[in-house]
Amino acid sequence: MTDKGRILDMIESPADLRVLDDEQLQILCDEIRAEMIDVTSRTGGHLASSLGAVELIVALHSVMDCPEDSIVFDVGHQAYAHKMITGRRKAFSTLRQLDGISGFTSSGESIYDAHYSGHASDSLSVAMGLASARAVSGSRKRVAAVIGDAALGGGMAFEALNHIGQEQIPMLIVLNDNEMSISRPVGALVRHLGRLRATTNYRTARDTLQDVMAGSGLAGQKLVDFGRNMKDSMKHFVVPHSMIFEQLGITCTAPIDGHDIAALRETFALCLRSNGPVLVHVVTRKGEGYAPAQDNPELFHGVGPFDIESGMPAKKCSGNPTYTSVFGAALGAEAANDHSIIAITAAMKDGVGLASFAERFPQRFVDTGITEEHAVAYASGLAAGGAKPVVAIYSTFLQRALDQIVIDVALPKRNVVFAVDRGGLVGDDGATHNGAFDIVYLRMVPNMRVLIPSDEAELVHALHTALSLEGPVAVRYPRGEAEGAEVPSDPVVFEEGKSAVRREGDDVAILAFGRMVHQALEAARILQEQGIQARVVDMRWAKPLDTQAIRDAAATKLVVTVEEGVTEGGVGQAILAELSHMGETVPSLVLGIPDHFVEHGKVPQLFERLGLDGASIAASIRQTGLFEG
Amino acid sequence: MTDKGRILDMIESPADLRVLDDEQLQILCDEIRAEMIDVTSRTGGHLASSLGAVELIVALHSVMDCPEDSIVFDVGHQAYAHKMITGRRKAFSTLRQLDGISGFTSSGESIYDAHYSGHASDSLSVAMGLASARAVSGSRKRVAAVIGDAALGGGMAFEALNHIGQEQIPMLIVLNDNEMSISRPVGALVRHLGRLRATTNYRTARDTLQDVMAGSGLAGQKLVDFGRNMKDSMKHFVVPHSMIFEQLGITCTAPIDGHDIAALRETFALCLRSNGPVLVHVVTRKGEGYAPAQDNPELFHGVGPFDIESGMPAKKCSGNPTYTSVFGAALGAEAANDHSIIAITAAMKDGVGLASFAERFPQRFVDTGITEEHAVAYASGLAAGGAKPVVAIYSTFLQRALDQIVIDVALPKRNVVFAVDRGGLVGDDGATHNGAFDIVYLRMVPNMRVLIPSDEAELVHALHTALSLEGPVAVRYPRGEAEGAEVPSDPVVFEEGKSAVRREGDDVAILAFGRMVHQALEAARILQEQGIQARVVDMRWAKPLDTQAIRDAAATKLVVTVEEGVTEGGVGQAILAELSHMGETVPSLVLGIPDHFVEHGKVPQLFERLGLDGASIAASIRQTGLFEG
Repeated sequence: MTDKGRILDMIESPADLRVLDDEQLQILCDEIRAEMIDVTSRTGGHLASSLGAVELIVALHSVMDCPEDSIVFDVGHQAYAHKMITGRRKAFSTLRQLDGISGFTSSGESIYDAHYSGHASDSLSVAMGLASARAVSGSRKRVAAVIGDAALGGGMAFEALNHIGQEQIPMLIVLNDNEMSISRPVGALVRHLGRLRATTNYRTARDTLQDVMAGSGLAGQKLVDFGRNMKDSMKHFVVPHSMIFEQLGITCTAPIDGHDIAALRETFALCLRSNGPVLVHVVTRKGEGYAPAQDNPELFHGVGPFDIESGMPAKKCSGNPTYTSVFGAALGAEAANDHSIIAITAAMKDGVGLASFAERFPQRFVDTGITEEHAVAYASGLAAGGAKPVVAIYSTFLQRALDQIVIDVALPKRNVVFAVDRGGLVGDDGATHNGAFDIVYLRMVPNMRVLIPSDEAELVHALHTALSLEGPVAVRYPRGEAEGAEVPSDPVVFEEGKSAVRREGDDVAILAFGRMVHQALEAARILQEQGIQARVVDMRWAKPLDTQAIRDAAATKLVVTVEEGVTEGGVGQAILAELSHMGETVPSLVLGIPDHFVEHGKVPQLFERLGLDGASIAASIRQTGLFEG
Repeated sequence: MTDKGRILDMIESPADLRVLDDEQLQILCDEIRAEMIDVTSRTGGHLASSLGAVELIVALHSVMDCPEDSIVFDVGHQAYAHKMITGRRKAFSTLRQLDGISGFTSSGESIYDAHYSGHASDSLSVAMGLASARAVSGSRKRVAAVIGDAALGGGMAFEALNHIGQEQIPMLIVLNDNEMSISRPVGALVRHLGRLRATTNYRTARDTLQDVMAGSGLAGQKLVDFGRNMKDSMKHFVVPHSMIFEQLGITCTAPIDGHDIAALRETFALCLRSNGPVLVHVVTRKGEGYAPAQDNPELFHGVGPFDIESGMPAKKCSGNPTYTSVFGAALGAEAANDHSIIAITAAMKDGVGLASFAERFPQRFVDTGITEEHAVAYASGLAAGGAKPVVAIYSTFLQRALDQIVIDVALPKRNVVFAVDRGGLVGDDGATHNGAFDIVYLRMVPNMRVLIPSDEAELVHALHTALSLEGPVAVRYPRGEAEGAEVPSDPVVFEEGKSAVRREGDDVAILAFGRMVHQALEAARILQEQGIQARVVDMRWAKPLDTQAIRDAAATKLVVTVEEGVTEGGVGQAILAELSHMGETVPSLVLGIPDHFVEHGKVPQLFERLGLDGASIAASIRQTGLFEG
């Protein structure tokens, strides 16, 4: 796929950018875009945001000196251009594939990746740490953080800004403002950014910067002029929202066109010379340079394979609905009957399947922005006031609200339902996005119940059950296509702590959770061919456990537990404790995600690699030696 | 202790305040203070902040209608006056005692307590939830949140303010500004609070409020005048820091004297009539009304029993140092030898024993404020830059940074040491402060190691070991007095995953963690009297586990695990999994904190109640019936 004479093909590292002029850099940007579109049309990926950040990234690398200097990308799904110009041009075609490169920056993948990104709002803290370490060690290394406008609404980013402003650590904060969070206050804030103002507290740092700028080229002069104009127009007293940053002690620039290589380079170069923190406000367009993505940035945010010409998604083979969409529809049906239900999401309306709910019940849908902590504590207050909040958050992001789950919800036994989407392996997105820990951190909390439906029908019943119970309940289900079960129109309330036997057998009992039930059934089928009769139990509840099912399992020769989560601290270990408590001393096997992070790849590939597919489960059971001869 | 003719003795509920005039209310405040000083001189407690908030609380209750209305206290240790006037006057003498009333607000204790407080910065989210539920149900219930200046620096509070400002939910935010966090930027912010400004976005809500005020009494008129003056002085352009709140859409008042009952009542009453969110800035003095506490608010923040006359702490019986102080001294010694060590705390410098470290190494001590998330991600950046950060945070608060531990530290294997103070039961502070979950949520994380020293000597070795290892390591130790072991001046590096046998015995093996080792030794002593030989193993490492010690334990008749943490998902269950993996089918007993929240009381009392003292452990072992006859 390499064209003849491309500049891109000559870029082995960011140092190679330094010999290029603005015009050549723009050509490079266009080449990067073409490559990005080509590869993601086959692999899928975060195309829209990566297209929007090409000039920003190329300009930044052209004036910094990575990996001596560091760029910390927030979330990191906008960093494809960064990957291509930091030695991963050839590997880029393996994007998000098993053993290929990650869709996010990943410090294990490249010395140019300053951290594992994927969870929003952490870049400023990490970058400040890098910059502070420089101060301690006396190095001259420079640090930049690239953060989107939506991620700034996360409380952690505010904590970092507050600290950065106090310490006056020299670092560059690039605000990549693509107005994605336009309905949120932070969106309103950043649209008004860039009006420079002097304040008493940090006038010095500001003046220094303005002096540097005044003595420099065009962009610097523009900044200074802008600041002067603002001072002149002060009497009109329009409060500039940039004040929030300025008040925290961080100098801000006027908004800059994020697709103007020359302006970006000049501004970045100037601001990197500041002796205090500077925020450069860059306005970018998601999908820039590819019309279908520009017209529909939501669709091309995280997109599957698509046809380049039309921008249409590649045909799907299977027609099963996703767990996510089944949840969204089921919650809508519940809300129609129960007016106390309020749906809450933390900036993931589409991701958690609540788009149509939001249209149907606008008064009972709340998107708090990227604020998992607030979302959960807010739900606690709603429940205390008599509402029935359903908090829908991805498993991997819900861990950000553990404290609020414990203190604000579980301790006072509030009626909050947690819809834990993306529980288990997520596939393409990899290590930062796997829902590997939720079973552990939810089970350990007193007063919490945890339901793990095994298919979309079970999900509908489980949600209905959760809404019928007093106190907190989590319903946990995986990403992607469901199993093809018929979705019930009239859901039932599950008996608390009762499992369902899916297959009888007296040699071995497989106690399985969620979609692992299907792998267990496949294992049972294989074992039967080998003369071993396996019982398969859909445990349904990770908490409370079905003690009778566990006692019955102890009557077989081997108790096997299978969960799509880490085994350390997981429900399999809890089942062993239950057996111990019963005084049972039966051989056992605890299967699940082992004690290491799991990278990206297709889920079935990963199941196989981790020994969680049916054949591997059967083989593990055979390998106990309990069924020889 | 009840004096004759006290107003306090006539207050059964806040409704009784309504017949009192300002002068009588002030007398009541003085009586409340006297009672507060009297009780805490015997029970200990959070005296300084509770003294400071007496007028604020009495004034608020006198104009609200609780429990129909709700007051949400942030952290809640300032709420003693609230407890006394909401039906707990007589119970107040049982403050923080076993089965007595909690030192924090607690929704399980009283219908007047809107939530379980204890973890900072969550009040705004909970209060907003309550206020939103009102909007949905159409009730006229009013909601106030009382939050300190330090808690405002927590990111979660910012998330809530951002959302409250966007939604314009009518609610009262009382900023209890006692300038405790004076060195922090948020302190600088709030000192400048109260300069009213009109801005385009929320002029309507503002004007409405000002109209209401203008038509009212003194305080309202003062507010309006203040606003006018500020508008006049606008040309001088001194940026008011209150702008941060105003920019988020929240109307702010000028600072009010927090000990002026009349001004407080008038302002609260006015602001409760606003149709949008209003922040009332109240300036209070910690320790108000009790000279020793006013002179030394740090000491009287959380104080033990003391002599009222002199203000001196009551004599202590034992002279053992605390784990906390041993940690602080040991880290100082390490830092003297290793200049890459940086100590980080989240607003708990004294609490985690780092006061002298901070004096000795001011350049290598960082207090981030109440920002656990930022503190951990910041440490990740420091480690990426070559430093060796040691993050000292209470177990119960560290759960707020789980996501950062997973994503920012463990995934990239950063050299971050977590000093997890207050691991296990904390005693007086109760349910919100117990360190019950850390073993679970730290063990589940790949790449993490967890050391649990059994005495202060082990703590010093463990810290030294943690600093010598690559990748993240947690060292977890309890609150309070250590065991009296001699503190080593020349610490050694523990072999990873190796335990230490403290007592030999072949009948039963007790695998114990942390200070549970001493309870296990006591159990062994009791068992020996009964002819049962118990081995006691100090496991040292909760991760990685000593598999040889576990294998050896399986050769006895019973394997017992004892941990000072919840058993659900804990290390005891992990030991069962290890036994299962080895193919061992030995009887076992998993002891630890059961699956419910543990309230306040003295730690030895709680151990006994939970079956974790030596005698109970011995009894549990006998009750297995394995050692009959």
